[in-house]
Amino acid sequence: MSSATAITPTRADDFPEWYQQVVRAADLAENSEVRGCMVIKPWGFGLWENIQRQLDAKFKATGHVNAYFPLLIPLSYLEKEAEHAEGFATECAVVTHHRLEAQKQEDGSTKMVPTGELAEPFVIRPTSETIIGAAFARWVESYRDLPLLINQWCNVMRWEMRPRLFLRTAEFLWQEGHTAHETEQEAMEEAKLMHGVYEEFLTTHLAIPVIPGEKSARERFPGAVNTFTVEAMVQDRKAIQAGTSHFLGQNFAKAANIEFLGRDNIRHLAWTTSWGMSTRLIGTLIMTHGDDDGIILPPRIAPTQIVILPVTPKPETRDAVIDACEALAKTLRSQTYHNEPLRVHVDKRDIPGGQRNWEWIKKGVPIRLEFGPRDIEKRSVAVSRRDKTPKGKEFIPKEQFIRDVEEILDSIQTTLLQRATALRDANTKKLETEAEFREYFKEDAPGGFALMHWAGSSEEEERIAKEMKVTIRCIPKGDQYAEEGTCFLTGRPSNRRVVFARSY
Amino acid sequence: MSSATAITPTRADDFPEWYQQVVRAADLAENSEVRGCMVIKPWGFGLWENIQRQLDAKFKATGHVNAYFPLLIPLSYLEKEAEHAEGFATECAVVTHHRLEAQKQEDGSTKMVPTGELAEPFVIRPTSETIIGAAFARWVESYRDLPLLINQWCNVMRWEMRPRLFLRTAEFLWQEGHTAHETEQEAMEEAKLMHGVYEEFLTTHLAIPVIPGEKSARERFPGAVNTFTVEAMVQDRKAIQAGTSHFLGQNFAKAANIEFLGRDNIRHLAWTTSWGMSTRLIGTLIMTHGDDDGIILPPRIAPTQIVILPVTPKPETRDAVIDACEALAKTLRSQTYHNEPLRVHVDKRDIPGGQRNWEWIKKGVPIRLEFGPRDIEKRSVAVSRRDKTPKGKEFIPKEQFIRDVEEILDSIQTTLLQRATALRDANTKKLETEAEFREYFKEDAPGGFALMHWAGSSEEEERIAKEMKVTIRCIPKGDQYAEEGTCFLTGRPSNRRVVFARSY
Repeated sequence: MSSATAITPTRADDFPEWYQQVVRAADLAENSEVRGCMVIKPWGFGLWENIQRQLDAKFKATGHVNAYFPLLIPLSYLEKEAEHAEGFATECAVVTHHRLEAQKQEDGSTKMVPTGELAEPFVIRPTSETIIGAAFARWVESYRDLPLLINQWCNVMRWEMRPRLFLRTAEFLWQEGHTAHETEQEAMEEAKLMHGVYEEFLTTHLAIPVIPGEKSARERFPGAVNTFTVEAMVQDRKAIQAGTSHFLGQNFAKAANIEFLGRDNIRHLAWTTSWGMSTRLIGTLIMTHGDDDGIILPPRIAPTQIVILPVTPKPETRDAVIDACEALAKTLRSQTYHNEPLRVHVDKRDIPGGQRNWEWIKKGVPIRLEFGPRDIEKRSVAVSRRDKTPKGKEFIPKEQFIRDVEEILDSIQTTLLQRATALRDANTKKLETEAEFREYFKEDAPGGFALMHWAGSSEEEERIAKEMKVTIRCIPKGDQYAEEGTCFLTGRPSNRRVVFARSY
Repeated sequence: MSSATAITPTRADDFPEWYQQVVRAADLAENSEVRGCMVIKPWGFGLWENIQRQLDAKFKATGHVNAYFPLLIPLSYLEKEAEHAEGFATECAVVTHHRLEAQKQEDGSTKMVPTGELAEPFVIRPTSETIIGAAFARWVESYRDLPLLINQWCNVMRWEMRPRLFLRTAEFLWQEGHTAHETEQEAMEEAKLMHGVYEEFLTTHLAIPVIPGEKSARERFPGAVNTFTVEAMVQDRKAIQAGTSHFLGQNFAKAANIEFLGRDNIRHLAWTTSWGMSTRLIGTLIMTHGDDDGIILPPRIAPTQIVILPVTPKPETRDAVIDACEALAKTLRSQTYHNEPLRVHVDKRDIPGGQRNWEWIKKGVPIRLEFGPRDIEKRSVAVSRRDKTPKGKEFIPKEQFIRDVEEILDSIQTTLLQRATALRDANTKKLETEAEFREYFKEDAPGGFALMHWAGSSEEEERIAKEMKVTIRCIPKGDQYAEEGTCFLTGRPSNRRVVFARSY
């Protein structure tokens, strides 16, 4: 297996199928018999636990607290914000009954059937603006009760017709922040603050470079005034929206009646925001960092950062080798990496070394350490870094490895970010004309991000989307995108380039 | 307010209403407009986060890993284990449609109505044995794949007709462990191991003494062979089942077809277990440790262990006092308590000192520290312990407090456990005759735990339950309950006493 790749097909041969195979080879998740709902297996869930813990710390550091709101939303809540209701209506799981009854069938068997019909049906939350809005309306009386800075970690459900593991599933896990403020400015600052937190988290923790910016009207969250997004490019040059933060204006406050007595002794509607990231991040991670041997995990969020593989050529020295491996693991675990204890696993399974090694390659563990009788003697370890091509191991004095391990992990983290940034930059082009645009995104072209002057309408954007499957990913923030020019489609003047791309 | 109690009514006057008022006064949770579903507010959710983190560490230390399984369960899965299906049929939320459609009403308005009827309805998981069993059946091929040691943190739904915040809600949060083993003995050991983990967690972390034991056949989990329970007594002398661990035999393995090729090269059914604890723990905590001023939180799981209350009599020294409080908080936060950084909050709100103080009393923070200009001068702090009656503060040199803080917190933790144990023991009686039993549990008697010899049938147990609302809480483990005697109801010989009580 040393010359071939662990994943068939390769990325170049069939990217979507490569993705499915990487998920399977790393044992991250699988489809269940419930249409569109996945089972997140322990290795995949370990990733989510690390994402969750590290992101949660950032929310708390910015003053947010966690709470929990009901899974079920009365239909009447959803109807209050018309755009929002319309946006989610076609993908809502609806609860209509509250019990089951055994019913005799014609063939003599019994079957469970729903009974106890509800006076008002509920939908399983596709997102919680409406139900959290109802709670906020109860909680807020005066400006002194503001801001409310709440986050919820939970499951949500959107009935997807074309599910794909992690990237698009009927049920997914996420966090949804919901805040209410006294002034428009404060709410806008909050939406932008969390947009920044997402950008920083993706870049620093997941080693995923993103273009932060704002969504066009057509791509906004249903009911939002502004939607801020962070857009990643994965290895098939498509975009993935990795997180969004919405300035909701007073739309949801009006729908839910979130009113407060202001400093001026007059009743006002609050200004609200919401922001979310989901298990979709794991799909983005795979598509950003995987290679033809499987996933490569950024050290900061890897469930295991270092796997120790005992080399036991002779049964009579096996116990001694394993003891030495455990001792090394213990030393490493007593050290920290970015304020968390190092996550080290000793794989003691008595299976062929090649098989064992490939399993950990496919699972993407940043560092593999082989440690056998000769290494014990020489006080060295054989270190394999998952980010290195060609694969090969380096013998390092054990004490040096223990001393430098954080540095090595940081170097892997940096390599992944640099590699992804280079790919993104190499596939981002400033184009000027409709002909260039059409050439760039024609069916067999690799595509990428196109930086285009744009002054079209939502209808014109819709036409491009339908015809070419290319959408405006964001109107990027930052000076480097601000320049005078001419809309490539309409010829109208424009003062800023936007990012067009195909997307997941 | 200094002579009265903060909660009306008192425990003695109306325990159920006292409970509701404590939940409200501490701002732990509230009812939502979704029948039986609660909103867990930040202070209540902070408790759950601590419970979750500490319990999760114990699961991981005993070799378990987390994963996530679908929220929705196909009806056909549920039907496979008949007892199980019957046990949950009357309380299942059923999803029957997957979209909504705006429908014009006669009055010209539009209304959302369910559409897209599903070929097979789903229930929202009331528990996940069936859906996790289906995954296990896919994952297990050989004895080498066993044991599977999985846990899931999630929400579940059981349509409750008489909900009560935390104790009995239609939706609740919990963890459910699910394991599969090669042998009956291993599975039984696992069920007992987790039973022990629950007992230790309740006693050590929540300061709740419990009687560990086994459920009678009538009280078993639907589909289980044995159910092990930990039973707490709360202050109105009723029992609360605080956690259960089930040995499922091969019942669910058979229903889901969890088969493996054994060491003998023959196919076998696996042996499975499941075990769970839920947000019900928070209700148990309140009813165990609350007093007439509100909840008292055990330091190990308190969201804030120490609240610092700046005393600012003069506006001109306010900034200096607050700086000194922040400095003290910083020093304390750099220390740990049971391996977690101390959780310290400085309440800088400019509200009347009495109101501020009472808020933290009602929220149950273990230690309140007042710190003002005179304390800064004298290098002392005014310490109020939430477990002390009468309330009163003690002046301690600041350096001594910083040095002894862990000890003080441990002393509060111990006091709470001792107090709860004393109440439980004072209200646990060995009784012999039916007359004594009826007297003990007559309607206006305080009741408690009755240790009774029992050799009755499930039908006889059912009769007692219907007539007197008293059930067998558990057949307790431990030598002290093993003795020869005569069943109080049937006169049959018995070799063990069981615990009877009213319960939540």
